[in-house]
Amino acid sequence: MTNNAGASRAARGRRPPQGEPVIDRAFALLTAFTEDRRSLTLAELSRVTGTPPSTTLRLARRLVHWGALERDADGRYVVGLRLWEVASLAPRAHGLRRVALPYMEDLYEATHQHVLLAVRDGTDALLVERLSAHAAIDVLYRVGGRLPLHSTGVGLVLLAHAEPDFQDEVLAQALTHEPEGVPLSSAALRRSLAEIRGTGVAVVNRAEPVPLHAVAAPVRGADGEVVAALSVVVPAGHAEPRVLAPALRATARALSRSLGAVTGPPAPAQGSLLRRR
Amino acid sequence: MTNNAGASRAARGRRPPQGEPVIDRAFALLTAFTEDRRSLTLAELSRVTGTPPSTTLRLARRLVHWGALERDADGRYVVGLRLWEVASLAPRAHGLRRVALPYMEDLYEATHQHVLLAVRDGTDALLVERLSAHAAIDVLYRVGGRLPLHSTGVGLVLLAHAEPDFQDEVLAQALTHEPEGVPLSSAALRRSLAEIRGTGVAVVNRAEPVPLHAVAAPVRGADGEVVAALSVVVPAGHAEPRVLAPALRATARALSRSLGAVTGPPAPAQGSLLRRR
Repeated sequence: MTNNAGASRAARGRRPPQGEPVIDRAFALLTAFTEDRRSLTLAELSRVTGTPPSTTLRLARRLVHWGALERDADGRYVVGLRLWEVASLAPRAHGLRRVALPYMEDLYEATHQHVLLAVRDGTDALLVERLSAHAAIDVLYRVGGRLPLHSTGVGLVLLAHAEPDFQDEVLAQALTHEPEGVPLSSAALRRSLAEIRGTGVAVVNRAEPVPLHAVAAPVRGADGEVVAALSVVVPAGHAEPRVLAPALRATARALSRSLGAVTGPPAPAQGSLLRRR
Repeated sequence: MTNNAGASRAARGRRPPQGEPVIDRAFALLTAFTEDRRSLTLAELSRVTGTPPSTTLRLARRLVHWGALERDADGRYVVGLRLWEVASLAPRAHGLRRVALPYMEDLYEATHQHVLLAVRDGTDALLVERLSAHAAIDVLYRVGGRLPLHSTGVGLVLLAHAEPDFQDEVLAQALTHEPEGVPLSSAALRRSLAEIRGTGVAVVNRAEPVPLHAVAAPVRGADGEVVAALSVVVPAGHAEPRVLAPALRATARALSRSLGAVTGPPAPAQGSLLRRR
């Protein structure tokens, strides 16, 4: 979530406090938890958020009361099951996921590797769902985690279909392929985005940390806007991207129809696909 | 989450307000969203929570600022993607689910119907994950939804392995099979729970609304405690519960080992299974 300093600034700019600093502090406590920091002691919570210990204790108790936080077996604070219960009603995450899951299963059965579903949130892609086999190659991303838009299959699809002003903003930055750290020119990225729109899929061929292909396609909502991206990630040599692309296109279109999108004739299957290296 | 009146009482009983009523009101707004009420106008939020409109507006804005709420295309409030992002760190929900998903995939491939994963929360089972095929029979439960302990496969497993005092509390209530509304005697339920502990699986055969079998098995954490229940739900005639039971037991044990449980010799496979009708 937004960092606490930004939140406080916005609160000051807009209206008198009237109790909102308490909400800001409560959310600062909740957002202190990250993938690398899944459990925190009271002292850690206080230090990470810059909240006085007595205030931290009072707020943490209140959050535990609501089930937004829980204590684990060691007495450390963790994010609570009841926060997840409320959050499971978020339309852009679980709502979308609920409709998408059977389609993701179809793709999973065809590949037995990874199937990803992501939505755009700000300047990142947020991974809403991932189906993975036991024996699948390692991928870097977890459900609830963020992926770069410019160097992942789902990210490129979301970026290719974002509003032009937003694309310009991303293209104006100094970008590198992740995780390799190879610079990416804005002209090359712009060509890639046009190609993704033309072919209906993004193909990313990655050599590091393990050689893999990702093939991603856009998912449209009732108003025709791209609301998500669906992809499969397979190890190099497992299946050719050109074989996977039609399955991705067809499945993404079927899911789009389930979401109420009126899908036109399929995009032409020919045309060169994006090559990363 | 806890209802607002309870939360306020607890706050009054424990310590002076010092701003916590704001947190209680904020969480009352968040918990106003339910499966049947996934989007709310400001007026509805105000009415449902009993919060004055001006306060509701102020708090809702603050929650939108933090991404805990969002406005949909119609301007209605919905639960936000960023709340889900934080909640995805909840160890008892997504943490468990992350470890369990490949095992659930294995069961899914064997049955192509429904595979459920649930944890106990208070007097309910909370559905943490569900894999379902396109063509699967209708089931009543969604991810993030609550299931009765005494009349579902996962619920019975969780109840059978709950602390004795808690079992007594549940058994003391007037219980009916849901959704049929058939009364369930505490003696019969107590026998069922003992049988579930003995055989290592719960089997529920349901006639309404569609004839189905559910077979469920316990999942243990590092300390040997039952932390979750795994089940498959199949239409009657699709596969016999006695055929599914060994797969459930084996998969639940494999998942338990992944969670750090030291699993002993398998439970005896013979023994009559619980029959619901």
